[in-house]
Amino acid sequence: MGRVVQKYGGSSVADAESIKRVAKRVVATKQQGHDVVVVISAMGDTTDELMDLALQVSPLPPPRELDMLLTAGERMSAALLAMAIADLGMHARSLTGSQAGIITTGTHGNARIIDITPGRIVSAVDAGDIVIVAGFQGVAQDTKDITTLGRGASDTTAVALAAALNADHCEIYTDVDGIFTADPRIVPSARRIPKISYEEMLEMAACGAKILHLRCVEYARRENVAVHVRSSFSDKDGTWVTEAEKGSAMEQAIISGVAHDRGEAKITVVGVPDRVGEAARIFEAVAATEINIDMIVQNVSAVDTGRTDISFTLPKTDGTAAKAALEALRETVGFEQVLYDDQIGKVSVVGVGMRSHPGVTAKFFAALADAGVNIEMISTSEIRISVVVDQDDVDRAVVAAHTAFDLDSDSEAIVYAGTGR
Amino acid sequence: MGRVVQKYGGSSVADAESIKRVAKRVVATKQQGHDVVVVISAMGDTTDELMDLALQVSPLPPPRELDMLLTAGERMSAALLAMAIADLGMHARSLTGSQAGIITTGTHGNARIIDITPGRIVSAVDAGDIVIVAGFQGVAQDTKDITTLGRGASDTTAVALAAALNADHCEIYTDVDGIFTADPRIVPSARRIPKISYEEMLEMAACGAKILHLRCVEYARRENVAVHVRSSFSDKDGTWVTEAEKGSAMEQAIISGVAHDRGEAKITVVGVPDRVGEAARIFEAVAATEINIDMIVQNVSAVDTGRTDISFTLPKTDGTAAKAALEALRETVGFEQVLYDDQIGKVSVVGVGMRSHPGVTAKFFAALADAGVNIEMISTSEIRISVVVDQDDVDRAVVAAHTAFDLDSDSEAIVYAGTGR
Repeated sequence: MGRVVQKYGGSSVADAESIKRVAKRVVATKQQGHDVVVVISAMGDTTDELMDLALQVSPLPPPRELDMLLTAGERMSAALLAMAIADLGMHARSLTGSQAGIITTGTHGNARIIDITPGRIVSAVDAGDIVIVAGFQGVAQDTKDITTLGRGASDTTAVALAAALNADHCEIYTDVDGIFTADPRIVPSARRIPKISYEEMLEMAACGAKILHLRCVEYARRENVAVHVRSSFSDKDGTWVTEAEKGSAMEQAIISGVAHDRGEAKITVVGVPDRVGEAARIFEAVAATEINIDMIVQNVSAVDTGRTDISFTLPKTDGTAAKAALEALRETVGFEQVLYDDQIGKVSVVGVGMRSHPGVTAKFFAALADAGVNIEMISTSEIRISVVVDQDDVDRAVVAAHTAFDLDSDSEAIVYAGTGR
Repeated sequence: MGRVVQKYGGSSVADAESIKRVAKRVVATKQQGHDVVVVISAMGDTTDELMDLALQVSPLPPPRELDMLLTAGERMSAALLAMAIADLGMHARSLTGSQAGIITTGTHGNARIIDITPGRIVSAVDAGDIVIVAGFQGVAQDTKDITTLGRGASDTTAVALAAALNADHCEIYTDVDGIFTADPRIVPSARRIPKISYEEMLEMAACGAKILHLRCVEYARRENVAVHVRSSFSDKDGTWVTEAEKGSAMEQAIISGVAHDRGEAKITVVGVPDRVGEAARIFEAVAATEINIDMIVQNVSAVDTGRTDISFTLPKTDGTAAKAALEALRETVGFEQVLYDDQIGKVSVVGVGMRSHPGVTAKFFAALADAGVNIEMISTSEIRISVVVDQDDVDRAVVAAHTAFDLDSDSEAIVYAGTGR
């Protein structure tokens, strides 16, 4: 029996009763003979409440101080879980991110893990303790200040710890049963995916699936950590995220799942002169704002005008900043106008199986056409096809793709109100 | 202009508005040219609320984990105060007890400061920052675990920091105007004491005065740190606690103040055989329970019986444990019975002036007699006289002593509901 890292999100530890329930599960895992290390988030809405408190005191809190404040949340739940485990008769020890040896960059609010030096965890675990690590936090390498790790942090911390500790696997506990073939709230016949590859999970996460964050999956892939995503409210198996299975491509389901994303907007720069370098200038201007561009489409320039339109998608929240950056360029580049459309949605089908099965694109587009959904933009990778459609067509498109690729189950999925956090 | 350490208690930072008010005061001090280091308690009732949360999860939380949990409180208020100060345009940096270099013993829940290595504070202060230190906490020398410092901790931390930083003085902010000649809720004519010596303050604290904790005053005396106890709700001067002034004994007020304590009980061991060693055995038994005994009175043994009664006072909360320890000795020592009386109170007059003025005891006892108060036990030091009286006579005794020693002011003191914390 080896080491297991378990991560519990905020909804799994929302109150004293939930903490005691999690404690029972942790103790049961230890009793099976594993060495257990737990990464824990703050209780329920604690982080949001602390943020509110900060904004009451200052409209623009300094990032270093915000990290000092927010990290109180995970500290509290880690200590409480350790107490609950002790109450069940086992030794548990809580550690802050700093004490656990999680070394990060200095970017407060969005630090990255540079290294993990788990000496203190290993000593405690070898002495028979269950170790509880406060998630979402680390210590900056240079300043020794406490940092928070940005989005998807506790999941990433858990996977990173699993790698550093050579754990057998990493369990991510959440309030849904695992990764589904589509969002069960849109597709009642969606099924739990028993096993999915890192590459597919990366695409699903990048295309809007909200259970595991992109950073976490990338870390798992890089370090080859098997991740088991499951519900903290039941004992059912969830979804295993692992290396792609080799040699079974022929029996592989063609598509593993359908993801959707309502968080993007589309910008079209109309009438860009078709000269070398103009497209580059446009994207340099947007890049300077540090906005992440997702899909890009540039049409062949019209023969008569020598101009072309360039469209790209980006997070809605960055729309205003991008528009401003482009408007500033209008004179110099000489394009006609900037159009902004935030009434779009992105729908993607993901599957390693499409490498070895031709016709996936055709089948996808036929299903969309049959459902009366118009395609505005297309983007593909080796294992993913994404389309941008009108916002009001997203649900219909997801349902159509799910059925077309034989993903529907016979029974209805149990629909949770869970956020998957 | 040198360094100043300011300490703000929980009631001074009970909510966002209070924090902003404290920030203004801190900034004003800095603008006067001082280097400012602040020690801050948790907001309002946070510590009690965290304790409640712990008890919901486990009836007997492990001390190490309790410290990990409780220290979240001061961390939060330190970060929020730093944010509020930044909002006023100044640089502020919060530090945990550990980051501030407060090294302690390993006794969780009641750790003692062993040393302070303020390197990080000094760097920040020299760089022009206002430094906010989370009170009530430090780091254990051996285990590097976070510890909380027991009663009177934040005051003691502030004084200890003032000593380590060679500060000009230490300001303790509370919700009353300073140390009064008696509790204003009992004696409306009580006056604020402008200046009191360490020795007198030690006696006042030991005898029930609740504004400054004994440990804090002892530290200040040992390190010769001038302490200014004042209200965070006004700009008035408070009470300075400093070295006794030499050479002015003749003009010295005879009595500085009257303290009272309702927290003690009296135990009388009746009919102790008057043999060598019996009294010792009785007190060894009590000492083994680690109970702090306050006053002891042993009467001369009766000639005819060869037995004597021994009475002592102790905290009410320790009454049961002490009685049990003594009952267990009844056979071996051979005393008749153990009486327990928790309906007592202690009233003390304190003043360095009594060293050079005879007749203080007589005046005190005459005042009590005139007020119809019976004296049950007497205990004295060079600068203090304490009497044990019936619980219902405490207020009358305090008022009588206050008047007898000319401490009454002409106007009524403004009575706060403050707890002096």
